[in-house]
Amino acid sequence: MSRHFDQADGLVENHDPATHKFVFNQTMFRIKDPAKSLAFYSEILGMTLVKRLDFPEMKFSLYFMATVSPEEHSDWSTDSDERMVQTFGRPAMLELTHNWGDEDDMNVKYHSGNDDPKGFGHIGFSVPDIDAACERFESLGVEFKKKPNDGKMKSIAFIKDPDGYWIEIFTPERLPEVLKAHL
Amino acid sequence: MSRHFDQADGLVENHDPATHKFVFNQTMFRIKDPAKSLAFYSEILGMTLVKRLDFPEMKFSLYFMATVSPEEHSDWSTDSDERMVQTFGRPAMLELTHNWGDEDDMNVKYHSGNDDPKGFGHIGFSVPDIDAACERFESLGVEFKKKPNDGKMKSIAFIKDPDGYWIEIFTPERLPEVLKAHL
Repeated sequence: MSRHFDQADGLVENHDPATHKFVFNQTMFRIKDPAKSLAFYSEILGMTLVKRLDFPEMKFSLYFMATVSPEEHSDWSTDSDERMVQTFGRPAMLELTHNWGDEDDMNVKYHSGNDDPKGFGHIGFSVPDIDAACERFESLGVEFKKKPNDGKMKSIAFIKDPDGYWIEIFTPERLPEVLKAHL
Repeated sequence: MSRHFDQADGLVENHDPATHKFVFNQTMFRIKDPAKSLAFYSEILGMTLVKRLDFPEMKFSLYFMATVSPEEHSDWSTDSDERMVQTFGRPAMLELTHNWGDEDDMNVKYHSGNDDPKGFGHIGFSVPDIDAACERFESLGVEFKKKPNDGKMKSIAFIKDPDGYWIEIFTPERLPEVLKAHL
């Protein structure tokens, strides 16, 4: 039996034990204004700031955001060093980089990766109910790139964060039916 | 007690129950050649292809990669639909998008986000031993943006994937000492 679940050219079957404890920990992008981005990620997506790191010599700050349910809150250490180790060891951290002064610099505008030159596309969140989630986003004034009923792929939405980065929103249980029409 | 662990302007304290089951599921970027990228992520970083989705009408494929330890392998369903639901519900999926034909098109080169126009920066992996991991990467011919002993931030490395996207490599337990020299 393969260690992979589907087939594709290039896949390496051998699973080097040296990699067994590797964790896909973080995704980093730059933000212009932390006050706007932290409001967005903490209110709209319910994320928690688990660690802030300020580097005065290099004039930047890092904000590590995670989805932390109320039950998981006590898993996080209140000790700064211990929480730093947790922050860099756990999966699915969003790392927001703020270069000081960007918020006041009219020339700074970060690139979503979805216009030329393309590269990065989006981050994505699973939500229990795509329709309820999108109604709430609308009521909170969130900008949509695609509403759930737009386009070919129903029940999938894209919203934009304050810098214009795309965030896909979907409910996993709905996807087999939605996607299989196009596979 | 705040639900956030550090302070910052903009943070919203109220934790809307509507967001409690949100999961930061995926990070997507475009790749030119899946054979190269899948070899890289499965061999160098030990990731597993958990789901492949081909969209013939729209001429693109999605490859969902995850770090799956041997003990976690049996957590994944062999049923295609069930595994699709798992793929979109679990944290820390890497979604690689391949637009068919890119691999043969000399004009296609994806943008790492670290040259102008900047935006996305990197993904990052926690590893048990940064020095051993980087020696292994070197022996496998991986391109480095920064080796662990380069620059001010020791014990942090950046490698490049086949498209030139940056991947930060670090060992969490080493970071409090490394970072605190600069905080």
